[in-house]
Amino acid sequence: MANPDIFQELRVALPARDYPIIIGYHLLSAKNIYEQYVNSSQVLIVTNTSIAPLYLPYLQAVFVDKQCDVVILEDGEHCKNQASLFQIYDALLANSHHRDTTLLALGGGVVGDICGFAASTYQRGVNVLQIPTTLLAQVDASVGGKTAINHPAGKNMIGSFYQPKAVIIDINTLQSLPEREFRAGFAEIIKYAILAGGDFFYTVYHALQGGLSHSSLELPAIISHCCQIKAAIVQEDERESGARVLLNLGHTVAHALEAYTGYKRWLHGEAVSIGLYCVALLSYEHYGLSKTDFDAIQHMLILSGLPCRIPRDIDINHLYALMAHDKKIKDDKLPFVLIKTLGHCYLDNTVKPACILKILQVAIEGE
Amino acid sequence: MANPDIFQELRVALPARDYPIIIGYHLLSAKNIYEQYVNSSQVLIVTNTSIAPLYLPYLQAVFVDKQCDVVILEDGEHCKNQASLFQIYDALLANSHHRDTTLLALGGGVVGDICGFAASTYQRGVNVLQIPTTLLAQVDASVGGKTAINHPAGKNMIGSFYQPKAVIIDINTLQSLPEREFRAGFAEIIKYAILAGGDFFYTVYHALQGGLSHSSLELPAIISHCCQIKAAIVQEDERESGARVLLNLGHTVAHALEAYTGYKRWLHGEAVSIGLYCVALLSYEHYGLSKTDFDAIQHMLILSGLPCRIPRDIDINHLYALMAHDKKIKDDKLPFVLIKTLGHCYLDNTVKPACILKILQVAIEGE
Repeated sequence: MANPDIFQELRVALPARDYPIIIGYHLLSAKNIYEQYVNSSQVLIVTNTSIAPLYLPYLQAVFVDKQCDVVILEDGEHCKNQASLFQIYDALLANSHHRDTTLLALGGGVVGDICGFAASTYQRGVNVLQIPTTLLAQVDASVGGKTAINHPAGKNMIGSFYQPKAVIIDINTLQSLPEREFRAGFAEIIKYAILAGGDFFYTVYHALQGGLSHSSLELPAIISHCCQIKAAIVQEDERESGARVLLNLGHTVAHALEAYTGYKRWLHGEAVSIGLYCVALLSYEHYGLSKTDFDAIQHMLILSGLPCRIPRDIDINHLYALMAHDKKIKDDKLPFVLIKTLGHCYLDNTVKPACILKILQVAIEGE
Repeated sequence: MANPDIFQELRVALPARDYPIIIGYHLLSAKNIYEQYVNSSQVLIVTNTSIAPLYLPYLQAVFVDKQCDVVILEDGEHCKNQASLFQIYDALLANSHHRDTTLLALGGGVVGDICGFAASTYQRGVNVLQIPTTLLAQVDASVGGKTAINHPAGKNMIGSFYQPKAVIIDINTLQSLPEREFRAGFAEIIKYAILAGGDFFYTVYHALQGGLSHSSLELPAIISHCCQIKAAIVQEDERESGARVLLNLGHTVAHALEAYTGYKRWLHGEAVSIGLYCVALLSYEHYGLSKTDFDAIQHMLILSGLPCRIPRDIDINHLYALMAHDKKIKDDKLPFVLIKTLGHCYLDNTVKPACILKILQVAIEGE
């Protein structure tokens, strides 16, 4: 591999832990970077069947002088479950990993979430590094310390807040990412564009118009900007008692869609795209989002090539019931993050069930 | 039930949470106490098959105005596992428990540990109250926020640090505790007596000589004193990076004995008793503990009626191998909490494997 080339280093400054997000090229095998964050004699790499053949050997080479064990999970959101979690615990114990071991999450959001959760609970907490290899994980999932597994009854229902020692984003790993997975990352980028508004919205808009790809010159700055927005919000509210809830924009509908379809039909980003469309529609139809802003969001989602509409076979009442399981419920109200204008989202606790059902109905394909 | 009568209220003051330990009589159904710590419209009581017939109705009566669901686990350390944990998650989701729910752990250390772990990870953390009904849980397990389940390869290998909203210790619940379970609590009391030394050591010594029972007048003060010692240590070092390790006195051997026998042969306190004997022997034979102190500890363990020696069918080498899985291992050294004098314990990282094996051999019954 070529020499490592750091594009940018950000910091997430939290009371209990201050950690870096290192964004650049050829970082996967940059031994001198890992040396700063891994001081244990044991490491366990958690990855999946798609990523392992591509990148596992590079990471193993970095840790050739240590006890380096590997868990290779099946790929896909439907594997972010109890069985995969216990596969990691079993491997840690079978190989006598001690309390000072380090876990390395090499993969997308699923690998990051499940490996982070295992790290937060193995022997009541061991170190973990996030090494995201998908666009979605690089712009969102790997930053901020939310870990989880899914339950058949709901997405991310079992999890923890647990910050990594470092996030290492190697942009080169996106070169091998299948087109569909790459596009799935656009959904979270669009979420940050809506949250930030202003120049960043139009940067993303124009990048999508120009056909954003893994080799686009704008990509590193877009990844970095998303991480900066997320880091700022997480610093303000690590445990989602306030501002962090805004990061759930589009996710209430998305999580219900994913649970409905057994986490198999869509990539997370695809479900988020439909969720963003629904919330934009809700904000436009009932909460005063301007037609100009709604059209801009809708156009951006179309440019991204992601699905926007709810397929006809989805039963809206069942979908709504799944939302009532969602973790963002408090005191039997269904809170929704709504869009006031580009750059101004807010939590609304007064959205009526009937109103949501109506919007979901309108969002159905061909309606 | 009679009117609640508070013997003492202690506080555990931690940066993220400051919570009370309320010790007294007839507290189980003291609605006015719960009202201060449960502000959710939903609660889930986690208990076991032994405790449910005795005390569950009293607690349910307190929450008659709320959605009150119940999970009844099988009784015993061997049930502190993955299956029981997911039984709790399943019940929470089946009954649509939201993020503001409260879990209530009604039972001994097993119920408290598993319910605390479920609370720390359901929707990334919900409130939990500890309501310990065994002596062991009242003097030790319910205080300090360590939660866990066991793994076949090791005790408490999966867990978290997660503080309860309150600990409510109703001394009346000890009246129904079987003799064997009551005695198991003596092991942790003796641990605190050794850690504290001085007057408290002799208070416990004389109480055991006098035949400590659930109706002994000294009992409330002994429970309270143990909680105070633990609270002080936890305040100093919540996450066991320093002083808290002293609370593991006797536990390295105990955990290995429990894992060896599939968590079925001994109550936790019985295994701790054998562990305390082994560490006293090790401290006396190799690390300068005086014969007077060793004899006092040994005599106290005999007075408690708890087992001290390792049964002949236990293979010492296999037992030692299990210790190497223990969570207190760092950098391949086997750290042991040793006793210098009564009231002065310390962590020693230099204990040689051969030395431990020799002591375990000597501790075998009839050796």
